[in-house]
Amino acid sequence: MLRQLLDDVASGTCSPDDAVRRLRRLPFADLGFARVDHHRTLRQGMPEAVYGPHKTPEQCAAIVVELLEEPGGPVLLTRADEHQVAAATAAATELGHDRFDLVGTARLATAVWRPAAERPGRVLVVTAGTADLPVAEECRAVLVALGLRPELLADCGVAGVHRLLASGDELAEADAVVVVAGMEGALASLVGGLTPAPVVAVPTSVGYGAALEGVTALLAMLSSCASGVSVVGIDNGFGAACAVARLLP
Amino acid sequence: MLRQLLDDVASGTCSPDDAVRRLRRLPFADLGFARVDHHRTLRQGMPEAVYGPHKTPEQCAAIVVELLEEPGGPVLLTRADEHQVAAATAAATELGHDRFDLVGTARLATAVWRPAAERPGRVLVVTAGTADLPVAEECRAVLVALGLRPELLADCGVAGVHRLLASGDELAEADAVVVVAGMEGALASLVGGLTPAPVVAVPTSVGYGAALEGVTALLAMLSSCASGVSVVGIDNGFGAACAVARLLP
Amino acid sequence: MLRQLLDDVASGTCSPDDAVRRLRRLPFADLGFARVDHHRTLRQGMPEAVYGPHKTPEQCAAIVVELLEEPGGPVLLTRADEHQVAAATAAATELGHDRFDLVGTARLATAVWRPAAERPGRVLVVTAGTADLPVAEECRAVLVALGLRPELLADCGVAGVHRLLASGDELAEADAVVVVAGMEGALASLVGGLTPAPVVAVPTSVGYGAALEGVTALLAMLSSCASGVSVVGIDNGFGAACAVARLLP
Amino acid sequence: MLRQLLDDVASGTCSPDDAVRRLRRLPFADLGFARVDHHRTLRQGMPEAVYGPHKTPEQCAAIVVELLEEPGGPVLLTRADEHQVAAATAAATELGHDRFDLVGTARLATAVWRPAAERPGRVLVVTAGTADLPVAEECRAVLVALGLRPELLADCGVAGVHRLLASGDELAEADAVVVVAGMEGALASLVGGLTPAPVVAVPTSVGYGAALEGVTALLAMLSSCASGVSVVGIDNGFGAACAVARLLP
Amino acid sequence: MLRQLLDDVASGTCSPDDAVRRLRRLPFADLGFARVDHHRTLRQGMPEAVYGPHKTPEQCAAIVVELLEEPGGPVLLTRADEHQVAAATAAATELGHDRFDLVGTARLATAVWRPAAERPGRVLVVTAGTADLPVAEECRAVLVALGLRPELLADCGVAGVHRLLASGDELAEADAVVVVAGMEGALASLVGGLTPAPVVAVPTSVGYGAALEGVTALLAMLSSCASGVSVVGIDNGFGAACAVARLLP
Amino acid sequence: MLRQLLDDVASGTCSPDDAVRRLRRLPFADLGFARVDHHRTLRQGMPEAVYGPHKTPEQCAAIVVELLEEPGGPVLLTRADEHQVAAATAAATELGHDRFDLVGTARLATAVWRPAAERPGRVLVVTAGTADLPVAEECRAVLVALGLRPELLADCGVAGVHRLLASGDELAEADAVVVVAGMEGALASLVGGLTPAPVVAVPTSVGYGAALEGVTALLAMLSSCASGVSVVGIDNGFGAACAVARLLP
Amino acid sequence: MLRQLLDDVASGTCSPDDAVRRLRRLPFADLGFARVDHHRTLRQGMPEAVYGPHKTPEQCAAIVVELLEEPGGPVLLTRADEHQVAAATAAATELGHDRFDLVGTARLATAVWRPAAERPGRVLVVTAGTADLPVAEECRAVLVALGLRPELLADCGVAGVHRLLASGDELAEADAVVVVAGMEGALASLVGGLTPAPVVAVPTSVGYGAALEGVTALLAMLSSCASGVSVVGIDNGFGAACAVARLLP
Amino acid sequence: MLRQLLDDVASGTCSPDDAVRRLRRLPFADLGFARVDHHRTLRQGMPEAVYGPHKTPEQCAAIVVELLEEPGGPVLLTRADEHQVAAATAAATELGHDRFDLVGTARLATAVWRPAAERPGRVLVVTAGTADLPVAEECRAVLVALGLRPELLADCGVAGVHRLLASGDELAEADAVVVVAGMEGALASLVGGLTPAPVVAVPTSVGYGAALEGVTALLAMLSSCASGVSVVGIDNGFGAACAVARLLP
Repeated sequence: MLRQLLDDVASGTCSPDDAVRRLRRLPFADLGFARVDHHRTLRQGMPEAVYGPHKTPEQCAAIVVELLEEPGGPVLLTRADEHQVAAATAAATELGHDRFDLVGTARLATAVWRPAAERPGRVLVVTAGTADLPVAEECRAVLVALGLRPELLADCGVAGVHRLLASGDELAEADAVVVVAGMEGALASLVGGLTPAPVVAVPTSVGYGAALEGVTALLAMLSSCASGVSVVGIDNGFGAACAVARLLP
Repeated sequence: MLRQLLDDVASGTCSPDDAVRRLRRLPFADLGFARVDHHRTLRQGMPEAVYGPHKTPEQCAAIVVELLEEPGGPVLLTRADEHQVAAATAAATELGHDRFDLVGTARLATAVWRPAAERPGRVLVVTAGTADLPVAEECRAVLVALGLRPELLADCGVAGVHRLLASGDELAEADAVVVVAGMEGALASLVGGLTPAPVVAVPTSVGYGAALEGVTALLAMLSSCASGVSVVGIDNGFGAACAVARLLP
Repeated sequence: MLRQLLDDVASGTCSPDDAVRRLRRLPFADLGFARVDHHRTLRQGMPEAVYGPHKTPEQCAAIVVELLEEPGGPVLLTRADEHQVAAATAAATELGHDRFDLVGTARLATAVWRPAAERPGRVLVVTAGTADLPVAEECRAVLVALGLRPELLADCGVAGVHRLLASGDELAEADAVVVVAGMEGALASLVGGLTPAPVVAVPTSVGYGAALEGVTALLAMLSSCASGVSVVGIDNGFGAACAVARLLP
Repeated sequence: MLRQLLDDVASGTCSPDDAVRRLRRLPFADLGFARVDHHRTLRQGMPEAVYGPHKTPEQCAAIVVELLEEPGGPVLLTRADEHQVAAATAAATELGHDRFDLVGTARLATAVWRPAAERPGRVLVVTAGTADLPVAEECRAVLVALGLRPELLADCGVAGVHRLLASGDELAEADAVVVVAGMEGALASLVGGLTPAPVVAVPTSVGYGAALEGVTALLAMLSSCASGVSVVGIDNGFGAACAVARLLP
Repeated sequence: MLRQLLDDVASGTCSPDDAVRRLRRLPFADLGFARVDHHRTLRQGMPEAVYGPHKTPEQCAAIVVELLEEPGGPVLLTRADEHQVAAATAAATELGHDRFDLVGTARLATAVWRPAAERPGRVLVVTAGTADLPVAEECRAVLVALGLRPELLADCGVAGVHRLLASGDELAEADAVVVVAGMEGALASLVGGLTPAPVVAVPTSVGYGAALEGVTALLAMLSSCASGVSVVGIDNGFGAACAVARLLP
Repeated sequence: MLRQLLDDVASGTCSPDDAVRRLRRLPFADLGFARVDHHRTLRQGMPEAVYGPHKTPEQCAAIVVELLEEPGGPVLLTRADEHQVAAATAAATELGHDRFDLVGTARLATAVWRPAAERPGRVLVVTAGTADLPVAEECRAVLVALGLRPELLADCGVAGVHRLLASGDELAEADAVVVVAGMEGALASLVGGLTPAPVVAVPTSVGYGAALEGVTALLAMLSSCASGVSVVGIDNGFGAACAVARLLP
Repeated sequence: MLRQLLDDVASGTCSPDDAVRRLRRLPFADLGFARVDHHRTLRQGMPEAVYGPHKTPEQCAAIVVELLEEPGGPVLLTRADEHQVAAATAAATELGHDRFDLVGTARLATAVWRPAAERPGRVLVVTAGTADLPVAEECRAVLVALGLRPELLADCGVAGVHRLLASGDELAEADAVVVVAGMEGALASLVGGLTPAPVVAVPTSVGYGAALEGVTALLAMLSSCASGVSVVGIDNGFGAACAVARLLP
Repeated sequence: MLRQLLDDVASGTCSPDDAVRRLRRLPFADLGFARVDHHRTLRQGMPEAVYGPHKTPEQCAAIVVELLEEPGGPVLLTRADEHQVAAATAAATELGHDRFDLVGTARLATAVWRPAAERPGRVLVVTAGTADLPVAEECRAVLVALGLRPELLADCGVAGVHRLLASGDELAEADAVVVVAGMEGALASLVGGLTPAPVVAVPTSVGYGAALEGVTALLAMLSSCASGVSVVGIDNGFGAACAVARLLP
């Protein structure tokens, strides 16, 4: 980018004033309440995700539309409520973009438009319990939006370790594993000890007693005795999917 | 288990391929969203408890049914809301299993099916205040499901220590004591000093001021000057009952 | 005690004034700086343990001597420094009580006098790593003082789960299991899922990164998905041993 | 004060300029590094205490001297190291003020000069264990400096509740009780339930496991189920003594 | 009590068996779900307060009735919701006890029956802001129930320190001061520096930014540079009133 | 103030008694539930802001009226709900003061009366994301009430750093910059490195995973590697505006 | 900078390749272990401060030298130990730059070279106690290095509020006030209520009981009821000085 | 492994008893104090790392020797003190294995034996400041032991963002980036926004004020607004290197 611009200035194709203007204007569109980043996919390989909370439905819709109007990768609306999803869906449909996917509850949904082309990579999403499924589903939806086709292994918690060992071959052959677990989060260590693949651990807010809304699982995963496990924030299935997308070719 | 399987392979009763398959399939039933552990009772002597939160009523019902379809020990649905209880109860009844017990509120109930046969053991459940009763009731229901017949001593908090001392003989002769207390949780230390029996302390979220939703009682119980008191998570009457069941013959 | 005293008063063997005096004087000896509890063994079945920190060597020695002068169970000096151990050992030896055991470092030792007679019970002490051994050794020394003969399984952490599974039979047949683990403390959940025996978990301050001096392991063990695991304080091998002594016949 | 000054201004005894100057200068002496408050005893009935940490020995000595040079109540140097104590003692002696008392260790001492005249009031200082004695001793020394003659009951922890009950009469008749306890701090609740006197609880940093350097005892005392117990900071024997001095006639 | 009983046993007025029975039954009435302490007023000088949360309206009513049926001091129902207040009021009225006072909201009320006779003592309740009034009102209602007639100084926060200084005489002459403050809780230090009276500080959950639901004010009050300030739990106006009642003659 | 009063006393214009009375009465009006500070604007240059939570609508209205009845600076009602806003607006209108501004939601609004005259100063309010806008809007409204005309740069978060760099000139030339950011709060460091102007950072409660309701952003901003960034409480747009008003001429 | 470079490219003074190279090389010097930022003073108006901890003395010396070799503003070495100070001083002296100032202890010192020219601005540094002086001295030294001439008011804590009120005029007339306080940090609120000047609050780690190494003062200052007080990190006298330098003309 | 064993049992090559024995013995060597895992490299692709703390030098040496005696991958001794390094080095040398590398201080070193063969992969290790270098060096040493050849970019903190932008091409082309940062940890977000490569963030304990020994950086990195950044524990350069090794082909 920068080099191209400087070449243009040198060749006279672009005046210094124009260069300053282009530098300011090009990489994002300023909607007043949002500076929409049209180059994020190029720069990071990540989708542009619109984070729902604290935004009005109108703002959500406007940002989704702005993103879809430019060519690019997948567009996601995350942690959205039903009003935000409805507004964005209507606006996108009007633009000719049907919604590709919608997972989650009316209060905490992930919507997807314009998914990426399918790409290779054996990704496992493993959950400790059925209660961790909503987070795992968010992760799976984002992975699919990014072109991956993850397999889900639900309810493999360490209290019945044979349930996980039964999937030993899948673990050994995976290209990446996402571990989704609440309570004491021990599953991440166990999986980390069974696979040479990169392991991204997602602590969930599942549990009680001393689970502290996911903080215990978070700390436990960060302290894992299995080396090379890395961690994202509590209930952040979206972040884990993005981390996986970064590390697959 | 493992030894049996290897013997079968050696004797030709079971081919290696079958053995791998059996290892994978036998100890649990994979419902897709849950891997139901049919051997937990054998392995741990614990009931299989279905933890309600974050599950749909349908998932709760399906897991309860799966567990009841195989012979085994008690089946519990814990921390369930009324929809989960209703769905599981209906499904179990259809299968011919009447619900044995239901305690708690519409938002936080424990349901029991197929209780264990009665077993010996003098178990006391002691609470600091009347406000600790819901947790004590959960504990008592799980103990009963496990075949025990606990006695409840309510409202024995240390601010009126004579209320506890009056039950000194029961304490001295118990086989196990569960102490349920919120606020500063001091009752656990006092009981620990009055009985040679194993003491399992359950901090509760009762209290205000600096009770921190049970964290204060939890820390206090873990720091007890009475030696040999052990602790479970906040409001975890279920866990205390299981701990007692483990330690009684 | 109380009943006996009242009978004596009723029979005239003991005057009311004497009864009041006996009630005040009998159960402990007041050394001015300490009220030594001679009935703790009877009342709790626990040893009287002298907690070293913040006491002078002279105070430690005087309390140990006071305890040994009366008939009774094992006497322990815990978390003591070398000066405290030396003073107590010298004073006890003078009294004719040789020290039975000493474990730990010069700054954090456990000394034992007058151990209890051997008693039955298969107790396993399982550690996650070699670094957890000091806490496990404290636990083992206290168990031995209390008459038990525990077996130690060191370095069974979940990052190499086969190391634990290899001891599956011992776990299945144990009467009680102490799990000693730092970092993420996941071993407690795994062991809890493999044995029907009572499991007492001891978090240790081993680890870094997010281990928070043992707080992470403590929280994780309290949140364990394996039901019926109970927990004692960080690095509290002494407490775990006492909890085991309470629950064995 | 203010009224007197205004009267003087009205009567011409004092010019407005002088009044401003007196207002600024009278109530304290500005040493540059300290503004020594000569009216604190009058205003609060409290001693002026020089807090040692982060001050040089010279600063400690200068402030102690400044305070002793004016007539007034007791002067204390608290939490001082041996160099601070030595410097202040030498400077005070030179001024003709012998040190009245010194308690604590070389690193954490309390020195007293010019104690108050003896005053009535039955004050009990009760400790949970021998390890709490250093804090109790600080409290006692400050109470004596303030003219009180407290009685010390050491080692009355709740693990052997009879040790406390034996002092039931003293508790019932006290004018004020200071409870000094670490670990789970349960003694405060127990004492609060046995006496109608004001109870000031001092959590100490004694303990381990989950005692969190006194935070657990602090939280537990603040959450006490015995009503009307009030609390000062961790290891703050000085503060408890001052609170008692405030409430006695 | 104990002495009387022993005398009776010695004189044959009471058999040992009866003595044991009386010891068990006398000091409290066992309602099954509560052990109502009829001697608390004698023992502690405190009212019996029924803590509402986690109790059913029926339980609240039964305990209030049990307490009113015996002669004694004031009876309070605290932190009650409107259903609990209604049930207790109806039951007490039926018994001939009109409710004396009711303060607070429908969700968090304090009800008073059978207040104590008026007693002397100048008590000030000082609040930092108008938002602290609900806690101050609870404190005032409990003080009145205990026979005191407190004066309220509202909105004296340190951001306008002259508002407090204007009440300097009242502060200087008070017998006890309750300081009710949220946010940074600085008012306690300021008041502590202006009065020789005992100061009981009540942190409130008022504030935002970093007020942490009252934890900041709690910590600040405990760390006060004004010596001898003692503290009760967050929003615990009840506890502060009890602490004041303990310290007044 | 004080000097003036003393001069009056000296000259006989004011008697000492009157002086005492004036000192007590002048600087605030005592409404019983509030001591309204009429000199805050003079003393601090700050507006008198009525903090809504825990106050009744009537109290809010009465304080706003009291403030508007005296000449002075801007009057604000902050963190108010719709009932509080309605009551205060009605009462002020009746007094002849139309509401100047209202921002925020029905549950958390800021209302402004009698704004200050416009004053110079280039103030930037920069937000990390669109979700931070509500806090930024509160800040902007307060700045406008104080006479400033801030410019808003929304959605400049560090994940797309070019969006901020494009506004480099504005940053370099600002007189003060308010940075409003949640999640990891990194924007404050980045802005601090790009401008010589004073930077006031406002952490917001936006985010999840490990954002801890704004605590993470708060800690991060306080730990900023860009020197001279100062910080106000979480979501405290009001405080940031006041800090800016203090530092501009 | 950017504009200048683009102009040069347009005019042919600079080739595109050179421009890229200059962009990379100019604004800092890469020492391998450090990228020394020569434009910080221009960009931020801040000094380049070398943070001592975790650096070798050689690294400290090399960075100080690199900074002094280019023309520019003041150079500081902060939080340095005596070895780091010695190495940097020797290297700078060799270069012809005498050290201008050195404050602090052998383990935590601030060294200054090449101070800025004197600039106007009445800055007050107010401390709550003598124990806060080391942090205040760091702040003062940095202010002097930046050309300011602050006045120090020591020991003005709120327990004796008249000590602060005596300096009311200085507070009212200051251009900026730094408040340095530990324990409960209440001084910041009091000062904020007495001056219209910008107030930068520095919490210190002074205190005990519940001071939590400065966290209590930090939280209290952030929650101050005096509006517009902004805060820097614990013991960060350096940061407060930089914040003041940013806001003075 | 399991399949092979079952085949051998089926073919009679191995008896069931032998199979059980092999299962128990093969995958690790039991040294009594350690169960050395010889298959970790195969299973996880990770090196076997001996964690130094709490182990004796003899234990460290014995485990290193045990690992080197079997063929396999790199062997590391981490977080070791000089005695542990010396003992292990001597024992390994005796066995014919020269130490390949040693980084860190005498108290916190990483020693490497038998490094892996070089493998491809452009890995960047970027630090925020020079003070973060020790952690970065640990990471680099482990990466080299694992066959990678990382490039180090030191001192790129966000306070001078141009220092990082100057390395934009390297970031854009990297296969993996490790970000090492303390204080507010903002560098992770910035880097995450500039590269499509996987980003592993390592918070360090560098900083003060509110850095909380690395907790602030940890929380900030977990809350990063740049999607797909994953995090390891505080100061855990070793863990980051392992995470990178897992994700590269």
